[in-house]
Amino acid sequence: MIILDKIKVGIVGYGTIGKRVADAVMLQDDMELVGVTGNSYNFRMEVANMNKIPIFNICDKKLFEENNIKLAGNFDDLLNSVDIVIDCSPKPHGKENKEKYYIPNKIKAIFQGGEKPDVAEVSFVAQCNYSEAMNKDYVRVVSCNTTGLSRTLGAIDKAYGITDVHATMVRRGADPGDIFHGPINAIVPVLEMPSHHGPDVRTVLHDLNIFTTAMSVSSTLMHMHSVIVDLKKKPTTEEVIDLLKNTTRVRVVRNAERVRSTAEIMEFARDLGRNRGDMYEICLWEEAIGAEKNKLFFIQAIHQESDVVPENIDCIRAMMGFEDAEKSIKMTNKTLGIK
Amino acid sequence: MIILDKIKVGIVGYGTIGKRVADAVMLQDDMELVGVTGNSYNFRMEVANMNKIPIFNICDKKLFEENNIKLAGNFDDLLNSVDIVIDCSPKPHGKENKEKYYIPNKIKAIFQGGEKPDVAEVSFVAQCNYSEAMNKDYVRVVSCNTTGLSRTLGAIDKAYGITDVHATMVRRGADPGDIFHGPINAIVPVLEMPSHHGPDVRTVLHDLNIFTTAMSVSSTLMHMHSVIVDLKKKPTTEEVIDLLKNTTRVRVVRNAERVRSTAEIMEFARDLGRNRGDMYEICLWEEAIGAEKNKLFFIQAIHQESDVVPENIDCIRAMMGFEDAEKSIKMTNKTLGIK
Amino acid sequence: MIILDKIKVGIVGYGTIGKRVADAVMLQDDMELVGVTGNSYNFRMEVANMNKIPIFNICDKKLFEENNIKLAGNFDDLLNSVDIVIDCSPKPHGKENKEKYYIPNKIKAIFQGGEKPDVAEVSFVAQCNYSEAMNKDYVRVVSCNTTGLSRTLGAIDKAYGITDVHATMVRRGADPGDIFHGPINAIVPVLEMPSHHGPDVRTVLHDLNIFTTAMSVSSTLMHMHSVIVDLKKKPTTEEVIDLLKNTTRVRVVRNAERVRSTAEIMEFARDLGRNRGDMYEICLWEEAIGAEKNKLFFIQAIHQESDVVPENIDCIRAMMGFEDAEKSIKMTNKTLGIK
Amino acid sequence: MIILDKIKVGIVGYGTIGKRVADAVMLQDDMELVGVTGNSYNFRMEVANMNKIPIFNICDKKLFEENNIKLAGNFDDLLNSVDIVIDCSPKPHGKENKEKYYIPNKIKAIFQGGEKPDVAEVSFVAQCNYSEAMNKDYVRVVSCNTTGLSRTLGAIDKAYGITDVHATMVRRGADPGDIFHGPINAIVPVLEMPSHHGPDVRTVLHDLNIFTTAMSVSSTLMHMHSVIVDLKKKPTTEEVIDLLKNTTRVRVVRNAERVRSTAEIMEFARDLGRNRGDMYEICLWEEAIGAEKNKLFFIQAIHQESDVVPENIDCIRAMMGFEDAEKSIKMTNKTLGIK
Repeated sequence: MIILDKIKVGIVGYGTIGKRVADAVMLQDDMELVGVTGNSYNFRMEVANMNKIPIFNICDKKLFEENNIKLAGNFDDLLNSVDIVIDCSPKPHGKENKEKYYIPNKIKAIFQGGEKPDVAEVSFVAQCNYSEAMNKDYVRVVSCNTTGLSRTLGAIDKAYGITDVHATMVRRGADPGDIFHGPINAIVPVLEMPSHHGPDVRTVLHDLNIFTTAMSVSSTLMHMHSVIVDLKKKPTTEEVIDLLKNTTRVRVVRNAERVRSTAEIMEFARDLGRNRGDMYEICLWEEAIGAEKNKLFFIQAIHQESDVVPENIDCIRAMMGFEDAEKSIKMTNKTLGIK
Repeated sequence: MIILDKIKVGIVGYGTIGKRVADAVMLQDDMELVGVTGNSYNFRMEVANMNKIPIFNICDKKLFEENNIKLAGNFDDLLNSVDIVIDCSPKPHGKENKEKYYIPNKIKAIFQGGEKPDVAEVSFVAQCNYSEAMNKDYVRVVSCNTTGLSRTLGAIDKAYGITDVHATMVRRGADPGDIFHGPINAIVPVLEMPSHHGPDVRTVLHDLNIFTTAMSVSSTLMHMHSVIVDLKKKPTTEEVIDLLKNTTRVRVVRNAERVRSTAEIMEFARDLGRNRGDMYEICLWEEAIGAEKNKLFFIQAIHQESDVVPENIDCIRAMMGFEDAEKSIKMTNKTLGIK
Repeated sequence: MIILDKIKVGIVGYGTIGKRVADAVMLQDDMELVGVTGNSYNFRMEVANMNKIPIFNICDKKLFEENNIKLAGNFDDLLNSVDIVIDCSPKPHGKENKEKYYIPNKIKAIFQGGEKPDVAEVSFVAQCNYSEAMNKDYVRVVSCNTTGLSRTLGAIDKAYGITDVHATMVRRGADPGDIFHGPINAIVPVLEMPSHHGPDVRTVLHDLNIFTTAMSVSSTLMHMHSVIVDLKKKPTTEEVIDLLKNTTRVRVVRNAERVRSTAEIMEFARDLGRNRGDMYEICLWEEAIGAEKNKLFFIQAIHQESDVVPENIDCIRAMMGFEDAEKSIKMTNKTLGIK
Repeated sequence: MIILDKIKVGIVGYGTIGKRVADAVMLQDDMELVGVTGNSYNFRMEVANMNKIPIFNICDKKLFEENNIKLAGNFDDLLNSVDIVIDCSPKPHGKENKEKYYIPNKIKAIFQGGEKPDVAEVSFVAQCNYSEAMNKDYVRVVSCNTTGLSRTLGAIDKAYGITDVHATMVRRGADPGDIFHGPINAIVPVLEMPSHHGPDVRTVLHDLNIFTTAMSVSSTLMHMHSVIVDLKKKPTTEEVIDLLKNTTRVRVVRNAERVRSTAEIMEFARDLGRNRGDMYEICLWEEAIGAEKNKLFFIQAIHQESDVVPENIDCIRAMMGFEDAEKSIKMTNKTLGIK
């Protein structure tokens, strides 16, 4: 492959997802990080500045100057310098930005899963529907939970045919750096039936019959899904384990090596030397995968801070016309340390 | 009904369950609390003493005396004074006590759900199988989770016929007064497939086809179950809500009155003036009950400290020959403030 | 004492504090609860209605009616029927209500510690400065933390003379029924130096030299204070323990009886059969009280939901002209089960 | 400097501290990691193996083989190949290992702060007493809390003279990867007066007059200290801030850049790209440093998993005869990314 020009990428919103995607863009040979936006001064901005990432600021200019951070320009300057924007601002700002900036400036944009599906032409998970995003202008990388369900259910559906799925999703109450949200001591059911996650999975796996319920708990590390699937075929447990071990961006972990909880998965990721201790892969416990007749049960853990990071990278390539999905996934994986 | 003699009850083990059952026994007109055992000196013993509950001590005698608590006798003294013992000691001490004390002394005994089913002739949930415990010598009141599932699934099975159940059980990591157990920040899957809860429900609802998975989280208040049921009939959501509102020891709570979590259920119970703030009823959210075709979904919360308390009371009556299940349940409910 | 007319009391705001004060008012022989306000429909309103407490509603009338709760009137009706109002609305609504309603209607009012001191003529802790509130129109019952510090430091100052206090206050992040606030996994310092608690204590103990620092943690049960005091005299540890055991609304708890944490204090309160499991007393650990030369160290735990409840009751009496502080305290204590 | 032979280092115990020290040793130009011990098979062993760290195993050999991990030898083989051992096994195994292995084999050993001071000739914090460890055979790197207090108080004492210190230490209940320990919802006072931390600081800062109290809370991230110091001199707040900014392995963080809690410090460390997201420096909030007359107040946060890692590295050099403390500290800092 010869890439004459690197893809010029801008990141709008430099929070949990934005800062990770920025780092990932910088690791790609075929991409160039033009810069990020910083709406307010904080330690993330200090680190971006240390790492020589250009910061394009919309407001708060004075505070940046007081802290000796030189700004690279304003928002328009960023938009004028990029081929594509990854909008990682909190919902519903993505949609607002689209109307106000991206459409008028005729700039391609990727949105995140907090936005509603209609913000984009396609909802995206690389290993499920890469081709659908080819050359599109607006694509939405789905949420961490939807990404997780799509990766595993997509592979299972392809191999055995799924007739029905029910997933109970136990969600972390807040991200690790968020001190404001609870619950401190409660289990909080999501009182919509079904939860919105099921329909969201269908934006990627279009014909999947899936029903989801959800709860929030007092943890910051990962979400956990208890999934029960009705299959057309009757694979053995070993066959399913094998399938999942050979599915990209999915990792089979083992109680046998003392990975017994979300805490230990995160510890494992730190030990692996991952950037920020991230676990991009959806993790399933080998000991909790069970196939019986045409039913399949499994438990999977989702690192809400990072599993969509590789998706954003592949999405850039698809939208810019890079045709080979498998090759893109391999390139992205290699840079992030995913086997 | 004329009761000539009150049933003489002894409690072995004065922890989370034991102290509650003791209080409940004292509220019954047809029972007399002969005393409780206290293996070690602590604040629970101080309160029992304040409330003039006789304490029969096995060891630690000196420490009780130093703290001016007069003991009523030793373990044998207790056993010789009662018609029935409720063994609330931590597993597997119930089984040990049976072999060592209850069989040799020919004394009837109730065990708790931590013990294995074979400790007893029958596993018991009053509204499901009261009659099976009639005049038996050894009966096991099942665990809080099994009690919860039996109450709701029992009623649903009777009304609509159940072909299949899957429940994901999100468990509190430790009881409110327990400072030693975690997790502080993790979701911990139970890595047995299925979890032991399914087979345990079948000790009460013998033919139920049920599969359960479980996780532990950082909370002390209640367990929560996400349940999906396949039915023979096709009731409407309203019919199911109605059925559950008319099922004893089940309470339908509402998001509409700002009961949005286990924390608010516990706050509700405190407001109701319940002893120790207990919620004996299994709580289901009206907004999370959904019937569609022959599928039924619901979320229920279980107060692990107290839901088995009324069961122990009814179990005493059944084992002592009181025949009318419904009457026993009503008597117990009235004394505990259950409508 | 002959009380010809009961004091007519209205409660404005029926949350954590309001509902408790309402219950306490109902327990007093010399008081009558005219009613409470309910700004929105929720389970607390359901319980108030069950307990036949008149509800005066400002808004949300329709929702109450839909739920079959008959309202007793509007806010003016309540104000016109009472001798005194206890304003338990969240800050800064107390101050607003004063300007808008209490001054124009010439009605006496008690405010809570969330309001600034200047909302009232006097800040109040019964055992410290009851007489200052005599016949006043506007008095502020101080916050839970200030109440706690005032009770113990007031007694210590009287006995030994305090030259200097430093307290580190470790605060619960949210109340038990609050699922919205964190932190889930962090220690959060209060970055004001000193924290506002020190100056607030001086609104009650006017000349105390006190410096406080504070942090929030992931707990819902109680606050904990680590206190170090410089004294004029040099009491022994035993003398201090004795002093505190004989100070009203202070409780010396013991590790020796397995009260090792805030969780076990709350469990103790539940076992004691306290309404809502409340612990009105400030709890100090006997094993953590240490006097050495002219320094005194202790650790105390504060039940933020309830320690100000008896203060509000005594405050009513003082403002209505009841002169005998000690008698009022005894009357209040007896009704609440405080020894 | 010419180093002819690298120092051969062995690590005994590959847990929270051991794995970090192993990584740090590998980063030093003048050291060689001969290997680590692995008593049981788990994911940490998998990562060590991936990173080609030789594993010397005492037991569990079969399990390693089953998982395709080739062992480098037994414990004696490790001892025979090293100049010095860093014993990171849980207390009190360090002492046992000393008697059983290190003394008989005449091998130098570093112990961790969980061991009692008498396990070693010297207790060590590099910037306080490097020279005391010169050429010694047995040295103890003190605990994370003692290290933190020594670093800041050592600098303050040197600059202004300390007459008295009181510190309240709020400790995390368990490490991030530990799912077994609580508390889930409590504040647990350490009921020893004073806590052991004060005397432990004196093993490093020998004449310091310090009194400490401690509590445990439901967090996994860092400890927090509220410190109050009586000084001989009267520095301004700005002078103290300046002093601390210029003290090695101490970091002044700022609320102004939204570092408001231990959670955000850890997030900052992840953003900085630190190995495992570690924060080796003791962090003080600029906004919470206050000097008034001869009193100084500050709040500091301690990363219990990592602050002793650089100490272990410097300790190796001191014991092996490297004389220049400042140079060692600089070498270590540079490899770990500490400014």
